[in-house]
Amino acid sequence: MVLELLSLTNPVFKSYTFWAGVLVLKMLAMSMLTAVQRFKTKTFANPEDLMSPKLKVKFDDPNVERVRRAHRNDLENILPFFIVGLLYTLTNPSAFIAINLFRAVGISRIAHTLVYAVVVVPQPARALSFFVALGATAYMALQVILAGAF
Amino acid sequence: MVLELLSLTNPVFKSYTFWAGVLVLKMLAMSMLTAVQRFKTKTFANPEDLMSPKLKVKFDDPNVERVRRAHRNDLENILPFFIVGLLYTLTNPSAFIAINLFRAVGISRIAHTLVYAVVVVPQPARALSFFVALGATAYMALQVILAGAF
Amino acid sequence: MVLELLSLTNPVFKSYTFWAGVLVLKMLAMSMLTAVQRFKTKTFANPEDLMSPKLKVKFDDPNVERVRRAHRNDLENILPFFIVGLLYTLTNPSAFIAINLFRAVGISRIAHTLVYAVVVVPQPARALSFFVALGATAYMALQVILAGAF
Repeated sequence: MVLELLSLTNPVFKSYTFWAGVLVLKMLAMSMLTAVQRFKTKTFANPEDLMSPKLKVKFDDPNVERVRRAHRNDLENILPFFIVGLLYTLTNPSAFIAINLFRAVGISRIAHTLVYAVVVVPQPARALSFFVALGATAYMALQVILAGAF
Repeated sequence: MVLELLSLTNPVFKSYTFWAGVLVLKMLAMSMLTAVQRFKTKTFANPEDLMSPKLKVKFDDPNVERVRRAHRNDLENILPFFIVGLLYTLTNPSAFIAINLFRAVGISRIAHTLVYAVVVVPQPARALSFFVALGATAYMALQVILAGAF
Repeated sequence: MVLELLSLTNPVFKSYTFWAGVLVLKMLAMSMLTAVQRFKTKTFANPEDLMSPKLKVKFDDPNVERVRRAHRNDLENILPFFIVGLLYTLTNPSAFIAINLFRAVGISRIAHTLVYAVVVVPQPARALSFFVALGATAYMALQVILAGAF
């Protein structure tokens, strides 16, 4: 049983694997995006990073801080999804529901990054993408709690 | 063997599943708690979030920052527990010890949030709840390292 | 199959388990390092943490902030590695490649902490250690995406 649940022949696990991989790459890309903004605006947080003796450490560039807020929001939301998505897969859920939940999280978190840190889109774009992923993750957490409690 | 270890018929995995689900929900609740404080104190970090043209972005409200520090502390402690708790389960530990370690982490991290970000309780309340979870997580990490090393 | 993949008789999983445990301990040590710097420099972020009525909350000590930046960098890079390393193990990779990737991540993230937060070493020491782990993690993520997509 568990053998099948964590095997790539299980479409739920296959979908989880795909979206988890995509979201890991997306998160790693945030570091690159931060670096781009740091070099563009010459905003470096450590003395050893300063490229010229004329520069000073700086912590308040709005472009750098915006990417860092988007990145922190990923840590707060995508990382809990990783574990709860895996445990949800192990509860042997309906493939239809599970695959669409993983898609919802994956697509809405990519959208969240785009409207927050790439092209700033007025609200409620960011709030909507945030709540779709949060809702799907909370639903999986509830299913996991029920499976563990009874 | 592994079949049984990650099955809900294994009481260790069942307990891990329950507490991981509870702690994911608890972490997602921190976002809601932050939002509540942001609206209460009208502290928004992005220009597109400002509800009125009279408001300006603000980063230093003590109530918002307190919840954000509690949330970051969750990222630093609960997220490593998620992976180490799963790997510890796969080392086939004593059910008595494992289940009580998971309980200790779950209950102490909920207590940590309550005394840090809901009702501020004087020290050493926060330090104690912090160290119970840290100690349990470090013990599991040591067991996992030993299982992987020999 | 999966039975074997997550068993400690699988050398890939054994290596993953070892390095995941080591990196969890390393991350928990960052909290201790932060605490040491907080007490050394008397920099406390919460009123209830102040040891003497003469102290005030402080957020800008460079030694404390340096450790906190190193810790946040761990959250951004080590935590995604934890999930992607596990999923990569479940794709049944070449043991030689997988074990060396895990080693590369483990050793380079320890080096990153040493040159960032323990003894400050001029660049490109930190950049190099950062990119070794990032490259290995991104490679695993790609393999995981391919396994999930086809």
